[in-house]
Parts: sequence; C-alpha cells; structure tokens
Amino acid sequence: MKQNNNTIVKKKKIPFETIKRLSLYLRTLKNQKQTGKENVLSSEITKYLNITPEQFRKDLSYFGSLGKKGVGYNINLLIGNLETILGIYEEPKIALVGVGKLGSALLGYPGFLNFNLKVYCAFDTDLGKIGKVWEGVKIEDISKIDTIIPEQNIKIAIITVPADFAQGIAEKLVNSGIKGILNFAPVNLNLPKDILVRNVDMASELMTLTYIVKKM
Amino acid sequence: MKQNNNTIVKKKKIPFETIKRLSLYLRTLKNQKQTGKENVLSSEITKYLNITPEQFRKDLSYFGSLGKKGVGYNINLLIGNLETILGIYEEPKIALVGVGKLGSALLGYPGFLNFNLKVYCAFDTDLGKIGKVWEGVKIEDISKIDTIIPEQNIKIAIITVPADFAQGIAEKLVNSGIKGILNFAPVNLNLPKDILVRNVDMASELMTLTYIVKKM
Repeated sequence: MKQNNNTIVKKKKIPFETIKRLSLYLRTLKNQKQTGKENVLSSEITKYLNITPEQFRKDLSYFGSLGKKGVGYNINLLIGNLETILGIYEEPKIALVGVGKLGSALLGYPGFLNFNLKVYCAFDTDLGKIGKVWEGVKIEDISKIDTIIPEQNIKIAIITVPADFAQGIAEKLVNSGIKGILNFAPVNLNLPKDILVRNVDMASELMTLTYIVKKM
Repeated sequence: MKQNNNTIVKKKKIPFETIKRLSLYLRTLKNQKQTGKENVLSSEITKYLNITPEQFRKDLSYFGSLGKKGVGYNINLLIGNLETILGIYEEPKIALVGVGKLGSALLGYPGFLNFNLKVYCAFDTDLGKIGKVWEGVKIEDISKIDTIIPEQNIKIAIITVPADFAQGIAEKLVNSGIKGILNFAPVNLNLPKDILVRNVDMASELMTLTYIVKKM
C-alpha cells in the first residue's frame, strides 16, 4: 500500500516502517532477555519477525553501528540503545476518546508497557463513566476535549468511538492540537495532510485472513 | 516488511494486500451508500484510503471488469460483487481464545459486522466465565480446544491471551486444525510455514506514532 508522505520522518529520512520494526526488535529482545541470554545474533532477533537479518542491520545502520556482524549483539546494550532511540522514557501524554469495551480494554492494555506507554486521560459522553477513574485514568466529559488537550499539551490520541462519530471527534482533536491519531474506528478519516493517522483495522485483517484460509 | 510466502493466494496469485484493500473498498462503499449516492468514481472510493485510483482498478482487474473508467461504478452492484468475491455470506466459524478485556471487546465488536463476521465460540481458563454466554457467544473451557475445534471444523482463531501463553495456545490451536490466526498477543508466534498468522500490534503502532509525532 502506498505510504503517505507524512509517514516519513523528514529530518532524518527514517521510514515509518523502520521505526515500527525497531519497536518489534525491542519487544523481541526483551523476550529473549527473559530466557537469560546475554548475546544474540541478528538472525535470532529476526527469526520469527518475518524480517531478514539484512533488513535488521539496515534499520540499525540509521543510528550508527550497534553491534558486530558474526559476533552479534549484547542484549542489554541493544535494549538500552533502542529504548533511547525510541525515546520510551519520555512518557508522552496520550488521550483516548471512547471508553466503550475496546476503549476500556486499551486503558489497561499490558502490551503498552513494553514501550512505557500509558493512556494519560480519557473522554466519553456517558454520564455514568465521566468523573470515574479506570485503570488509573480519569474519564472526562467529551465536551472538555478542546480545553484539556491544549492545557495538557497532548499531541497523541487514540480513537475508539463508533464509526459514525469518528470523523467529528478526529476534527475536534486536531483543532485542539493533536498531531497523531491511532484510529480503531472502522472508517477512513479525512484530515489535514500534516496529521499522522494510523489505522488499526481489526475487521479487515480478520476478513482477509478468512478469505485466504478458505482458498488454501 | 517482507511478505511471507503464505500471504499469497497461490491458485489465483492474488496478493494478501489486494484482498485487504478489497475489504477496505467494501467498507468505504457501504459508507458512501448511506449518503444516498448511486454511482461513484474510483477516485472517490480511494480518496481517504491512501490508495491510488490506478491501484484500485488493478485490484478489481483480478476479477474481471466491474466498472467503467470515467463513468464510475454503481455502488450497489460493486458492493454485491465485492461481497461475493470476499465470500462474506459463507459465515466462517471463528474461535477466540482469551476472554479478558480485549477478548470480550472483540466478542461483540461492531466493525466485524461490515463483513458479516462473528466469533462462533470462545475459550478461557476462568471458571467464573466458562459456561456463560457473552454477546451470544458461549465461553468454553480452554482444555476443550482440541475437541471443539475439530468437531466444529473451525479453521480461524483469534488469540487474545497474555503474551506468555500465546505460543502454547497457538500450537494447541494448530494441532486442532486451525489454519489462520489473528494474533493480538504482543509476541511473535513460531508456527509451521503453512499456518497464516496476522499480527495486530497495537502497542508497536502507538509507539511508532508517538516517535514520529515527537520528531515533527
């Protein structure tokens, strides 16, 4: 699929997909560290990632030499380097809009902990939820998006509202200063070109999987 | 990212990504139908999908001519054709393993309805959940995977168990006849090459988005 222009980090020319792979390497290294290993070869890191060792070394080369071919990589050092590159200690503030079933699941999603990520505040329309604290996250009235987002200088938002509301919410978020959106609503958002949108499209993935398996 | 060999439908040589785009076209057409339109141009379908009209026409060309350049496409006819191609009336049986927060959210996920998809049965270890029916789906004891999956001839499974359990569950599913897995666990599954695995990696997407926005 064609990449949007805004999926490239222009200053350093690092592709979006490289950053995504770095996060996969980091997750893999943390799993491998748990087994007590100290060193790994690039092939051991990429083995189950569907990525070639060459791609791995190319991705790391954006940041200088972080290991030696043949000798491999010290797991702790590489974890530290990747964490620094990805900036996981900076704890970016993330807003979530739509505390329904999927939204609530994401409030306490353990997978985010790999990257030190956590939802900072959540918004909903349900009076029964507003004011409550779930998973350590306060749920605010959705009408407060345009005050809280700029006040707290929040730049990242997760959209988990029903499809029909997603475009309106996205526009409100962008007008309040949001620069990047992780969109779970099964709808295509129409936003200015400088806003980075990534869609997590669970239904299309399942549809595609189903189709391919039927043809196997 | 390198595509696995098993992401290609070998008989017809239709790429995985084409099938995924067809599902996005279908979703978009359904949204456009709601506005009362009867015909659309390819550019109107692809506008917010980050796909070129040329790619759209190429994707459709695998299945013969389904519209006319310049004149456009009849929305109802194209929806019907795409639904037939994708086989959405065949209601494939889908199992879900791990009825935690994310798993429960997927049991009743409205986005699946665009493709007539629904979870058929669910498995968990929690005695408080086993035997219950949530969102119309019966929750079974996880120890029954290897009887229920073959009995019901289920080929597709969704994994929403914690990362540490995902590999073991995946192996059990494959031994029971599962051919395609939608994996939400933030871990890389090591399975035979003929098993199709798609990862929905919410944490990596959020990590990447955060990184890019910081550099903007």
